[in-house]
Amino acid sequence: MTDTLNLTNFVCPLPLRRYPQIVMGHGSGGQMMNELIEHLFVPTFAGTGQFGPLSDAAVLDLPDSLSGGSRLAFSADSFVVSPPVFPGGDIGSLAVHGTVNDLAVMGARPLYLSASFILEEGLSVDILGQIVQSMAAAARIAGVRVVTGDTKVVERGHGDGLYINTNGVGVIPPGVNLTPSRITPDDLLIVNGPLGDHGVAIMSLRAGLQFETEIISDSAPLNGLVAEMLRVCPNLHAMRDLTRGGLAAVVNELARDARVGLEIDEPVVPVRPAVASACEMLGLDPLHVANEGKLLAVVPANSAESVLEVMKRHPLGQQATLIGRATTAHPGVVVGRTAIGSQRVIDLPAGELLPRIC
Amino acid sequence: MTDTLNLTNFVCPLPLRRYPQIVMGHGSGGQMMNELIEHLFVPTFAGTGQFGPLSDAAVLDLPDSLSGGSRLAFSADSFVVSPPVFPGGDIGSLAVHGTVNDLAVMGARPLYLSASFILEEGLSVDILGQIVQSMAAAARIAGVRVVTGDTKVVERGHGDGLYINTNGVGVIPPGVNLTPSRITPDDLLIVNGPLGDHGVAIMSLRAGLQFETEIISDSAPLNGLVAEMLRVCPNLHAMRDLTRGGLAAVVNELARDARVGLEIDEPVVPVRPAVASACEMLGLDPLHVANEGKLLAVVPANSAESVLEVMKRHPLGQQATLIGRATTAHPGVVVGRTAIGSQRVIDLPAGELLPRIC
Repeated sequence: MTDTLNLTNFVCPLPLRRYPQIVMGHGSGGQMMNELIEHLFVPTFAGTGQFGPLSDAAVLDLPDSLSGGSRLAFSADSFVVSPPVFPGGDIGSLAVHGTVNDLAVMGARPLYLSASFILEEGLSVDILGQIVQSMAAAARIAGVRVVTGDTKVVERGHGDGLYINTNGVGVIPPGVNLTPSRITPDDLLIVNGPLGDHGVAIMSLRAGLQFETEIISDSAPLNGLVAEMLRVCPNLHAMRDLTRGGLAAVVNELARDARVGLEIDEPVVPVRPAVASACEMLGLDPLHVANEGKLLAVVPANSAESVLEVMKRHPLGQQATLIGRATTAHPGVVVGRTAIGSQRVIDLPAGELLPRIC
Repeated sequence: MTDTLNLTNFVCPLPLRRYPQIVMGHGSGGQMMNELIEHLFVPTFAGTGQFGPLSDAAVLDLPDSLSGGSRLAFSADSFVVSPPVFPGGDIGSLAVHGTVNDLAVMGARPLYLSASFILEEGLSVDILGQIVQSMAAAARIAGVRVVTGDTKVVERGHGDGLYINTNGVGVIPPGVNLTPSRITPDDLLIVNGPLGDHGVAIMSLRAGLQFETEIISDSAPLNGLVAEMLRVCPNLHAMRDLTRGGLAAVVNELARDARVGLEIDEPVVPVRPAVASACEMLGLDPLHVANEGKLLAVVPANSAESVLEVMKRHPLGQQATLIGRATTAHPGVVVGRTAIGSQRVIDLPAGELLPRIC
């Protein structure tokens, strides 16, 4: 059926957006942010040395004195979520989970975190204390150590309570190599559970919406789940966590970097009914909404069953679902198959959908 | 002469400051910031595992698979300097130098940096571009690679143009161990050049002051200089870079952590005449002013001459000066000897002196 989409002479309908000033869309995980990254950060920093494929964490080679087959993963993330406390978590636990997960989906065992705070004059020290305790609790549960950090204070009106930056260092064991270039056209796509909870929990709070079923952030550390998956399938091809831009952003980036087509069976993509209703009210596509406890794994077809099985036995993978596959058709493009059998191109969100969601 | 100071029953004249809200002084590198760190961050994060002595970078042990005698250094720093462009540098070069130097003074060879940006809506993309180019140039000169990063955008009025966080990873070669606990009462104190240029350059700009001699930030990467020092003295005991809180903060922290007394010969501490004049006008003590290209080395007495010699041959150490010594007298306290032979206690700056200097 894929040949009904003729993409041979496909031209992007969106012109290259040129903005003389930063706008909110530059931070939303979509096309505008990618342009900033690809047209400014990557070419400029590439001059400092070889710049690897863009992923959740950099994979570092160490000098010979520190070799032995393992490699280091190094990840960076700032958190500006608003409000800082939300159903299911807060900016502190989110900052730990975000960096732990960036390392985990590169196949690394997260070991060490840094925690840097930009505090706004006037922030309640009690609230700061609660958030720091939440960070420490999240780190203990994830089994990582917060080993260094930094504190800066800015004048009232130049921050928003607090911004937190976490960086993480982890070790990728020998034999593990998660990267889009290993994706092959027979691979299968698995998510570990329902999408959209984190983003919708925060957007509902900001919009003042209440639902019969409270929607709670899915923020959670995925390193334990990933370790189980790699135990049964060390040959796993690629993995990403589904943060800003949601599943839609991740599958597009994977398709582009792997130069394969991806097909998503939209009716089987798990979304809780309350989240689906809220998305309708808020005008959001659940595929575009950020998560912080969800991942997409690209698994060799012959390992999919054992990976799914081990995921379903883990508390954070009980609703793990096979949602699609890679294909030689339409390389670089993601196609969704709808319930009625039609198809659509699943694109990157363009600009601002969900500001300050993480 | 030190016994003229009786510190046996010394009681800190400043009561423990209790603030229900964050104030600017919590970010200024002095006592208030130390209280926040020691009463909140350290005890809370210590629960995630052993927390080493507070220093410019964490020293990390790696799993056996990555051993070989070397250790990893990991450092974190946010930069909120205002204004973002100043004589001698900008927030981008400062962010690279700050993290490179935090690694260097732990004896590490800096290898990899992350760069995270919190951009305020409305920031000029041209200015962002210039600052990113400045970061990349600084990284190339320092020989480090920017390998990962993150971009967030906040609404107008919740930032100040841009804040940058850099983290760094470096490798400490076998045999190098720079830590206050190795300081002995015969050690000598060496700085690599005149103090105060960075802080005074920025404060003068903010105050609209002009001087006959332009005062330029000393921001520079110290890893090359440190490598030379460690080459002639791998047994060097401790080193710190003289950032927020200046020399005064660093010598107090070293004296406290090493449980030794430190004596500073104040007349020989190098300060440029223009910086000294500006400090008088601005009501600042040059010992309290932040630098970003200056370090203090604590050197075994029998190596001081060779360390000074190699420093003076390096462009960033031409004015290296022996400024004092460790002593068994007054442990934990830093005493300055003035030009007229009198003594004073050199204390930590209490609260806010120089907001947003780095």
